[in-house]
Amino acid sequence: MIKAAQSGASSNFLQAYSIIEIADNDLRRELAKISGSDDYVNQTGVFYIFVADWYRQAQILQTENKDVKALQNMEALTVAIVDTTIAAQNMAIAAESMGLGICYIGGIRNDIDKVADLLDLPELTVPLFGLTIGMPKTRNEVKPRLPRANILSVNAYNRVTVSDLQAYNEQTSDYYANRSHHQKSTDWTQEMSNFLTKPRREDVAKFLKKQGFTLN
Amino acid sequence: MIKAAQSGASSNFLQAYSIIEIADNDLRRELAKISGSDDYVNQTGVFYIFVADWYRQAQILQTENKDVKALQNMEALTVAIVDTTIAAQNMAIAAESMGLGICYIGGIRNDIDKVADLLDLPELTVPLFGLTIGMPKTRNEVKPRLPRANILSVNAYNRVTVSDLQAYNEQTSDYYANRSHHQKSTDWTQEMSNFLTKPRREDVAKFLKKQGFTLN
Repeated sequence: MIKAAQSGASSNFLQAYSIIEIADNDLRRELAKISGSDDYVNQTGVFYIFVADWYRQAQILQTENKDVKALQNMEALTVAIVDTTIAAQNMAIAAESMGLGICYIGGIRNDIDKVADLLDLPELTVPLFGLTIGMPKTRNEVKPRLPRANILSVNAYNRVTVSDLQAYNEQTSDYYANRSHHQKSTDWTQEMSNFLTKPRREDVAKFLKKQGFTLN
Repeated sequence: MIKAAQSGASSNFLQAYSIIEIADNDLRRELAKISGSDDYVNQTGVFYIFVADWYRQAQILQTENKDVKALQNMEALTVAIVDTTIAAQNMAIAAESMGLGICYIGGIRNDIDKVADLLDLPELTVPLFGLTIGMPKTRNEVKPRLPRANILSVNAYNRVTVSDLQAYNEQTSDYYANRSHHQKSTDWTQEMSNFLTKPRREDVAKFLKKQGFTLN
């Protein structure tokens, strides 16, 4: 799993991420609780936390008495998030190719400051998400993705209007009504509207600043 | 390729990304020039731009007279970057599984404002990176990744010091000296130190704000 994660591309070979394996069950339960994902996190095989990470580079620069500005701006944060996600998705695909199941746990950002504390994270690191890997008891139906015309364009961005999403709403309405678990009467735009009624995790920016990112 | 990209996980099924295929050769050359990646971008099979994208959700919220605050903060931007990267890496793996080669082109962020203009990107969208896919003429050696001990920890973050990186420096020094192309006398910490001497792409944050992200 780790080798698969590390085999992904990395911007300028920076490898700006770390992986923390959560082997301690008490710690796992605490992270599960923060995430609101008790079942997913506690009843799985392994649980990894993926950390966007400039700490190694900060050590290198500080040893040479250089400042760490290059690690702090929005470009640097973006690079680290992308590097980390490439590594995680490589691991996810490796797991799935072996018949295992995975679940991303973005819920660790529900209390990102606490998670960083629990994992003893230093400056210029961000606990981005968890990834569970285990033997799936069942296999869910595949959720229908956005129609290609709503997500792919050629040469210039295609502005999708709500009426363009009509066909997808019919498709997802049918999916939600008839799937084998958690059936409900809704469609994609309704789900989006409900979910995005108010901003989520408003302390993330504050946490990032505390970690040394300037967000500029 | 598009189906593989769309098959990845997506935070709360938000699917906060779009893909733009660059089919026009003049446009491709212009993007290649901005990226400083002429050879990679112009001599490949297809070239996609991956866009972190809240525009669809903005349309849904605005149609219901809701404000778009939930799409603007650092959490929302993080979700979109992660969703976009999962999709891209899924596409990359699908391509590689068929014997094709890929290259991420982060260089589009060299002039991110211009790229957004060329692609007619609306508010709440970010051109994150390009991805080239083609038939590789040759296959490079695999670059040695950080030793597992430098990237993986258990239960709590393992603070890596520069002296911990000694073994990796020996390994990468050997790699850079002996690889089949572009041999050079360097090692990983030296590469990092040189590359990170000053902040890169300092206009990214300004661009994000222009697009409607509050970075708070």
